[in-house]
Order: sequence, then structure tokens, then C-alpha cells
Amino acid sequence: MVTYELVDNCLNTTFENIPDNVVTHAKMCLLNWASVAIGGSRHRAVEILVGMTRELDVSPQVSLLGRAEKTDLLWGALINGTSSHVHDFDDTHLETLNHPGSAIAPVCFALAEKLELSGRDLLRGFILGMEADLRIGNAVSPSHYDAGWHITSTAGVFGAAVAAGILLGLNRDEMVFALGIAATQASGLLEMLGTMTKLLHAGKAAQNGLLAALLAGRGFDSTSRALESPKGFAAVFAPQSDLTKVNVRWGHDWELLKVAFKPYACGIVLHPVIDACIALRKRTKPSDVKEIELIVCPYTLILTGKENPKTGLEAKYSVRHVTALAFLDGAASVDQFTDARALSPEIQSFAARVNPIVDDNIRDDEALMRLTKIDGTVDEVHISHATGSKENPMTVSQLTEKFMALCGDRLGEKNALGFVERLGRLESESGISALLSLGTAR
Amino acid sequence: MVTYELVDNCLNTTFENIPDNVVTHAKMCLLNWASVAIGGSRHRAVEILVGMTRELDVSPQVSLLGRAEKTDLLWGALINGTSSHVHDFDDTHLETLNHPGSAIAPVCFALAEKLELSGRDLLRGFILGMEADLRIGNAVSPSHYDAGWHITSTAGVFGAAVAAGILLGLNRDEMVFALGIAATQASGLLEMLGTMTKLLHAGKAAQNGLLAALLAGRGFDSTSRALESPKGFAAVFAPQSDLTKVNVRWGHDWELLKVAFKPYACGIVLHPVIDACIALRKRTKPSDVKEIELIVCPYTLILTGKENPKTGLEAKYSVRHVTALAFLDGAASVDQFTDARALSPEIQSFAARVNPIVDDNIRDDEALMRLTKIDGTVDEVHISHATGSKENPMTVSQLTEKFMALCGDRLGEKNALGFVERLGRLESESGISALLSLGTAR
Repeated sequence: MVTYELVDNCLNTTFENIPDNVVTHAKMCLLNWASVAIGGSRHRAVEILVGMTRELDVSPQVSLLGRAEKTDLLWGALINGTSSHVHDFDDTHLETLNHPGSAIAPVCFALAEKLELSGRDLLRGFILGMEADLRIGNAVSPSHYDAGWHITSTAGVFGAAVAAGILLGLNRDEMVFALGIAATQASGLLEMLGTMTKLLHAGKAAQNGLLAALLAGRGFDSTSRALESPKGFAAVFAPQSDLTKVNVRWGHDWELLKVAFKPYACGIVLHPVIDACIALRKRTKPSDVKEIELIVCPYTLILTGKENPKTGLEAKYSVRHVTALAFLDGAASVDQFTDARALSPEIQSFAARVNPIVDDNIRDDEALMRLTKIDGTVDEVHISHATGSKENPMTVSQLTEKFMALCGDRLGEKNALGFVERLGRLESESGISALLSLGTAR
Repeated sequence: MVTYELVDNCLNTTFENIPDNVVTHAKMCLLNWASVAIGGSRHRAVEILVGMTRELDVSPQVSLLGRAEKTDLLWGALINGTSSHVHDFDDTHLETLNHPGSAIAPVCFALAEKLELSGRDLLRGFILGMEADLRIGNAVSPSHYDAGWHITSTAGVFGAAVAAGILLGLNRDEMVFALGIAATQASGLLEMLGTMTKLLHAGKAAQNGLLAALLAGRGFDSTSRALESPKGFAAVFAPQSDLTKVNVRWGHDWELLKVAFKPYACGIVLHPVIDACIALRKRTKPSDVKEIELIVCPYTLILTGKENPKTGLEAKYSVRHVTALAFLDGAASVDQFTDARALSPEIQSFAARVNPIVDDNIRDDEALMRLTKIDGTVDEVHISHATGSKENPMTVSQLTEKFMALCGDRLGEKNALGFVERLGRLESESGISALLSLGTAR
């Protein structure tokens, strides 16, 4: 009775039962999610979806983050979920490579807006959705991912259904059926990585999970053993699974606390290098740099050894190029990885002065940077654990910087700061309309 | 390049390339589909979906068969697909247990109405969607079904995408991407059989396939190897597959011609028995019957040996009960399998006079019925191949009877007959609005 037990665990967990540090971390997840949703809200994939809502004459019921248009509940979940998955910049449960926020937060925002729920309600739905999502992901990992499934989508639909079910006030049987309806919609292939279709995965998980809960709340029935039946989710979607992980130490261990955030819009092996650039540029002007020696782990050159990148996407795979970007701009966010920036002579000339050296004794979240100036003096910095790693997680203030970098121009600085501030005290907010008016376009 | 080859095959098949017998069989598929869609259009699952469109304030763009409401394109595909799957009375590709019409026809009807396409256009889209669906199903059968997947849904989404892509006029690359977007939405677990969620499978396949084609037509990109990639549909969804079956003898063999229709709303082992009842009741009044001896194949008692059924659903699994229903009513359609009819004393008393006898030499589409009258005389009939079997397929006139039984009351006899007549000359119709005005409620 894994499914019933999960539902009972969720329904029996009140907001008061949730520890403060979990609430705090959940708000960081939401802040990170809002950054990437707003940051991705003008991507072509999002424009196509918004265009479709016009053709379908979709009713304006809920907000799209970063945009002026409104859509109905289900389209809101789809579009906000898709835009938050645009920049590969989501929250990450490192053990399972699951990005849960992008499937769950859109559902919570859509329902909280439509039903005029409080920040506290939204947080409870979000946290329980995250726990369900991550624990179901744990139960089928790693064989599920290895079999070709995009766990963000396949586990995400359950998280979205739980979050929606909590916010809709489903009873026990309805919630169990919502998980059944979610299970039969679980989908999303890793084959799609690198295409727009991958972006859709987070949005579809959000939309399908929300649909599951809406239908169950109206009396739509389903299996009561979505997870554990011999033809249920675990059996069909994973060669090996351990369903005891779904409910183990519920209320004691919080998977949500294991969710990490990415400070930079590229692969994590480059994160210590970028940290080092940001530290050293405070003491040295770019024009004073003669040479940079980088001591990095072997993976860094295997994964990011590309020379002469021609596009923003290719630049993410060039350690020399990223070093130049980070030193010159003091950042490695979405704005750095444009095609124009990849071709900039200034960047290319600086990149030519970067010399990466592999050292087997360096860990993947570590780097040593040695800078030689034109005047012959040397400066160096050692990053033992990169920002965003397990040992050095991003702080609220770093997430705020990320938010401002991604959303400041879009929302205007004042609104962007106001959004961060209100989100920071979400559990005290009676509703989210003020938050949304700051997080959408005029 | 299986996916590209399939797309090329579809795009290169004009209406003129399609043999007459395929067009005729396709119209029979559509007639059968319309019967069950209209017949199922008042089911509770359908009412719930229609209720949701009200809450979401969905735009009235296309018709719902058997109903007065309209919805947008995507909801139309979802609801018409769901209602056609209500009574387990769909068309069936016997080798793969695939019910293709319920995922594909709703997409064709929605687009033909919205885009004001001709009957000929609709037929071409439908036929190519059916071929793609059935051939992809062949390629992954039987291991795909055995692994727990509901092939009507998982293969159906490809059929729906192809049909939609044809009707939307997608080019080669767009169609290939549509198949990618379809693949990543493929879903539907056999676990859901016996619940409302199973009904949703056909509707979701239709809706997701239509969405895939709509997005691809607007520039949404995806993988170009949806079927054959190492992490593509066949690899992830089937332990064994043979993708050569997708394009083999395209244009020579037509899988659509293998699609059969069910005359009665219960399992096929009972179909020869029902045929026998309908033959003998023409010569004998029920009140004159003393005893009925039924010689049947062993499966008949294994599958339908239930005694004293208490519900309409249980009655489907009782050979004695079904014999009574068919003899008294001269039918075994949806109206026969109600809870009230299951408990009727008249039926129960007749059922007590039925004596089924197993004979290993009788095939599963065969039955011998020997009727002894109260006056001692004996009458018998031998059904060598039941109606709807491969050797004795349903005729247009039998499908018309099925349509009238399921839809006559709903549409009114005159409109129902008009619908059948217009559908029969669909390739000559310049549009489907007249057809739809006959097939919807006022």
C-alpha cells in the first residue's frame, strides 16, 4: 500500500509539522524557480506556446511569469513549467538528476492565484509535492534514468499531482486516484535533450499532474496502486526499484533539503573556475592580465575542452572561453552565453591567455587559479568547494543576485527587488496577487 | 532513418494512391467510431471533462459528438476520444489488440471542422494516421503490451500526430518533429483497465498527438529519430521490437484492412452464441422455450462462466445471462448491459433454462445452439464463424444497425440515418458541417 501510505503521509503533514529550515529551503527553491521562469519567458518555445493560446482563445485566468499575457489554469502550468526549464538552470537533486521545482512550482502558482490561497497554503502544497516527487524519484533511481526516462518529467507529474491535490483539498481516495491519473500520463524521453521538446517536459509534467488532481477532485476514478501494482509505475518504468524509499523516515528526513542551485548557466565542473575568476577580478583589471594558469580536475578538459566556440551553446563547453567571460563580466549567467558574446574579439583575445592544466588530485568542485600580471607579479586563489556544491550551497543573497541577473531588466530593478522581498516572507502573505503583479510584465 | 521514411511514405501517399477498398474500410472505421463516440458521450467520465471545460471557460470551436457543447481543438480531441473508448466497443486490430480509431478519428474531426476541410482530406489524414499507428504498433508487439503499455494510447499518439500533420499540411521536417513531440508524450498503463482513467487514454493520445503536430507546425523542434534512436520510442517502450515493420510494403499492404468491428458489447467468445440466439428467436417465442443447449469452446466457460451476475458489467461474463439477454432482446448492445437488466427476473428465469456444454472441437468463433420447445420439438442452429470474426466481418448494414442501436435515440432516427448516409459518401462531401449537425445534440 505504498500509494495510500504516501497519500496519508502528505495529508497528515500540516504546515506546522514542517521544520523551519525546510520552509526556508523551499522558499529558496521558489526564488530559484522564479528566476529561471522569468529568465526563460521570452524563449522561442515559450513564444510558440503563447501563440497557441491565442489561436485556441484560451481564457485569461492566471499569470505567466515574466509576461503580460494570462491563460487558463492548465496552460499556465504548461507555459510557466516550460519557461523555467529553458536555461538548464533549475534546482537539482544531485543524487537523481531530478529538477523538481520546474514541474511543481507552476502548479502551486496557478492554483494559489486562481483559488486565492495564502502563501502558507502554497508553501505546504509545494513542499509536499517536492517530497513526493523526489522520493518517488529515489525509488526508481538510477535504473529509471538509465532506461531513457527524463525523471524531471516522469517523477514530476506525481509531484505536480500531489501539490495540486493538497491545494485543491482532495480527500484520501481522491488523492490516491490523482496519483493513478498522474501515473498513466507519466512520460518524457531523455532522447529530447538539446531540443525544445525537452523544455516541454517540465511543463507537461506540471500540466498533467494538475489535470490529474482536478479530475480526481471531480470524481474521476483510477487505480489505487499507481506506484506498486505489478503493472504500475515502478514496475513498468524501472528495471530495478525500491518502493520503501517513497515513505521511509517521512517527516524526519526531508529530500527537499538536498536540492541544490546552480549559480552559473553552464556545467558544474566549470563552477569552481568561475568562482576563482570572480574572486581574482576584484584585485586585477583584465588589461593587466598576462596569463592565467588553471589547475583543474580531469573532467574539466574532457567535458569542456572545446576550442574556438562559435555559439553561446558551444561556449558553455569551452573552459578557456568561460574563464574569459567570467573574468571580464564577473558573471556566467544567461547573458554571457549568447552567440554574439561567443564571437566577441575581446573574449577571444582574453581566452587565448588562459592555460588549463589537469591535476588528478583536484576534485570536481575544486580549482586553483594562478594569474600572472603584465608587471610580472603573481596572484592566486584556491576554490576548495565551488558555489552551489554540497559543501558550499548557494545562499539567499547569491540566489537574489541570480534573480536580479536573470530578471532585473525584465521586471525593472524595483519590482525585481520587491518580488524577492515578498517571496522571502511568503508564509506571512495572505495571497500572491501582489507578488505576481511584481513578477509579470506590464 | 525509420522515422524519416515513415514521414516520406505518408507525405507521398495522395488520396488517389489509396485503393477503393481501403477508403471503404476507413469509412466503416469512422462509422463504428461515431457509434461509440456518440454512444459514450453521456458517460460520467465525459461529463466530468465537459464540466472542466466550463470551469476553464474553454472556447467553443469544434463539436462534441452526441452533445450540444463545443470546445477548442485540443479539448475536442480529448473529449471525443474519451467518449469513443467508453463502451469497449471500438474497432480492433486483432493481432496487436490496438484500437486505433479512437485516438485518430477525434483529431481528424476536430481539424476538419476547424479548418473547413473536405471529406476527402479528412479521409486521407485518417487513413495515413491509422497506417502509422498500426505499423508502429506492429513493430513493438507483443513485448510492448506485455510490458504493461496500453498500445491504443502509446501507438495512438503517433497516429494522431500523423493524421494531424497531414491535415495541417506539415512539411517533412515538421512532420518528423511532430513524431518526436508525440514520442515524448507517449503514455498509458494497462493497470488502468476497469477505471475511468483507461477511457482517458484514447482521448489523451488524440490530444497529445494533435498538440505535437500543432507545435511542430509553428517551429517547435524535436529529435528527428523518434522511433529508432537508441533512447527512442522502440528502445524505451519495448523489450523486443522490429522497426522494419513500420515501412514494410507501404502502399501494397494496408494494415487498416485488418481492423475488425465488434457487433456486441461483450467479449468475443460470446459472439457466436449471440448470433445463434438472434437466428433462433426469429422462429420461437421466448415463452415457448423449455431448454437451450449450447455447445461452445472451452474458453467460453473459462472466461464467461460467472453465475448470478448482479451488475451490467458482471453480466458480460456470464454466458447464460448473455444468452437470455440476446434471446429476449435480440441484441447485446450497451442497453442490455445495465445493472437493472442484470437483476431482471425475466432474464434470470430464462438464464436458468440455458445449459452450456464445452466441446474441445468447437473453435472460439463457433457455437451450436439446440433449442427444445415446451411442445417437445427441437430447433437448432450452427454458427461457424461469428459476426465480426475474420471470416465473417461486419457489413456496412450491420454497422448501421450498431449505429442506430447506440445513437438512434440520442440523435433521433431521422438524423441518425442521415448521419450514416452522409458518412457513407464522405469522400464526395466538401465539408463536414452538415455531418456534424446531424451527429451532435441540439
